[in-house]
Amino acid sequence: MATIRIPEPVPSPAQDCEKLKKAFQGWGTDEKEIIRILGRRNAAQRKEIRDTYQQLYNKSLLDVLFSELSGDFRKAVMLWAYDPAERDARLANEALKSKRKSITELQVIVEIACASSPHHLVAVRKAYCSLFDTSLEEDIICHVSQPVQKVLVSLVRSYRHDKEVVDSTLPKLEAAKLHDAIVAKKLDDEELVLVLSIRNMFQLRQTFKFYKDDYGKSIDQDIMACGKGTLESIVKVAVWCIDAPEKHFSEVIKASIVGFGTDEDSLSRAIVSRAEIDLMKVRGEYFEANKSSMDNAVIDDTSGDYKDFLMTLLGANI
Amino acid sequence: MATIRIPEPVPSPAQDCEKLKKAFQGWGTDEKEIIRILGRRNAAQRKEIRDTYQQLYNKSLLDVLFSELSGDFRKAVMLWAYDPAERDARLANEALKSKRKSITELQVIVEIACASSPHHLVAVRKAYCSLFDTSLEEDIICHVSQPVQKVLVSLVRSYRHDKEVVDSTLPKLEAAKLHDAIVAKKLDDEELVLVLSIRNMFQLRQTFKFYKDDYGKSIDQDIMACGKGTLESIVKVAVWCIDAPEKHFSEVIKASIVGFGTDEDSLSRAIVSRAEIDLMKVRGEYFEANKSSMDNAVIDDTSGDYKDFLMTLLGANI
Repeated sequence: MATIRIPEPVPSPAQDCEKLKKAFQGWGTDEKEIIRILGRRNAAQRKEIRDTYQQLYNKSLLDVLFSELSGDFRKAVMLWAYDPAERDARLANEALKSKRKSITELQVIVEIACASSPHHLVAVRKAYCSLFDTSLEEDIICHVSQPVQKVLVSLVRSYRHDKEVVDSTLPKLEAAKLHDAIVAKKLDDEELVLVLSIRNMFQLRQTFKFYKDDYGKSIDQDIMACGKGTLESIVKVAVWCIDAPEKHFSEVIKASIVGFGTDEDSLSRAIVSRAEIDLMKVRGEYFEANKSSMDNAVIDDTSGDYKDFLMTLLGANI
Repeated sequence: MATIRIPEPVPSPAQDCEKLKKAFQGWGTDEKEIIRILGRRNAAQRKEIRDTYQQLYNKSLLDVLFSELSGDFRKAVMLWAYDPAERDARLANEALKSKRKSITELQVIVEIACASSPHHLVAVRKAYCSLFDTSLEEDIICHVSQPVQKVLVSLVRSYRHDKEVVDSTLPKLEAAKLHDAIVAKKLDDEELVLVLSIRNMFQLRQTFKFYKDDYGKSIDQDIMACGKGTLESIVKVAVWCIDAPEKHFSEVIKASIVGFGTDEDSLSRAIVSRAEIDLMKVRGEYFEANKSSMDNAVIDDTSGDYKDFLMTLLGANI
């Protein structure tokens, strides 16, 4: 369900590095060549390219990209060039250090905690410690106020079982716990937060199904009926990221391009972070929800190299 | 600070496997040979031996050990032969499934959470999911009642920063938070549990130092003054495992041999799990605390192959 297209056969990392080096040389940078190479390699291949570039030219590819590119294009290419765990650690840190800490910023932390594998989440926590000399959860405590703090700290401490194992005795019981907390408008309720943080995805999807069957409305509808604050949005994003990440990312992309101006940071994050996971499903979900093409929307709202890069990640030939 | 003695040069895994195979053959098992080989190899070397044994003889070394050995000796050798993360996942599972869930059983979970590296703790959580089709925290919720449940769940979800970085603005403030909770006899207080679960070891040691300086008594004394229940013991063990694991393990060993009869499970666990980490320090701490030799105490309370195995892990020549 990835959208990126890797050529067959794929050039060797040394060949890629040589071409990249050429693209950086001379009067102007050959952005198209950079897009054609990096935009069509998966995370493991990009890592090999980074390592090989360092060995061959004794320079960090990331530093060179930073100095040669600019604007939203640079930001998006850098996100893509980082190791995914380091990328997410940096995104989380940026969100926590931002002045505004609305859902637009903080949702990245929920995405990392609820729409990633347990292995990836741990790798992000590890990268966070290495990069910032403090842990992700310590920074959440330092920079986010209650009650959102409590929910985020608990979510990032997850290590969900990733096999499809469902304990059939739990969904009804835990749907009731969730419902009790939501009816009481206590979205930072200890049991609610714990259930969302420790149960595996398959288990929780069953619980959400029982919730709808038993109480008439879907859990996300009931959550949003509690209020319009950051807490409600954070819990709703957690539920969506667990239940159907493609719904969440389709909404992030829609929100980033709707109306006047574009939120390039959100748009880049959604496309870069899902291009190797489920961007095909995101595209389908976008079409379902908006009855229009996500790719066309991206084309209409972006331009130049930035547009070409995003479209390459979406599988287009530029 | 490890006590095991690895021969120099160390035989190849194939040579070790051949000798092990011979030791299993014939009328009786050559337990001494098994002890001499396995008791003098570190975790990485034991893994190589396991892998090589499987390749050479198409049999699991662990299965063979199980069928050839017996009693406390078998239990101890098996613990030592497992991959350390798998060993700890199994120990935690055994504790959670046991009928008695006193501090004697449950403290193993605190040891894993508070006296291990963040990397090891995550490896244990991963192994737990693989072995038992549920997560460690889900099993804690299923088998341990409140308020101990809440403390254990939070501790096992740690990923402590492992560099020696101390934020000097925190110890006084957090010592006060801990003191407030302890004075109120609320050892499952949300802030207390969070501080013990997310701060790194160096930070917490400073906090415990400030606690003593500011409030006169050490934090573990104040915790134990709250009561004699499992909750108090669990929180005290967490503090010791963070502050000075050797103190905790010295006490575990002492408790396992004191009085009538020996608690072989606790004795084996303490020696096996610390032999490659800090058993030398545990020995020193034992002597400080009891004015007698830990090694002599182990010799007095054990016998036969079991004794020889433990003493080998303690560095003796048998």
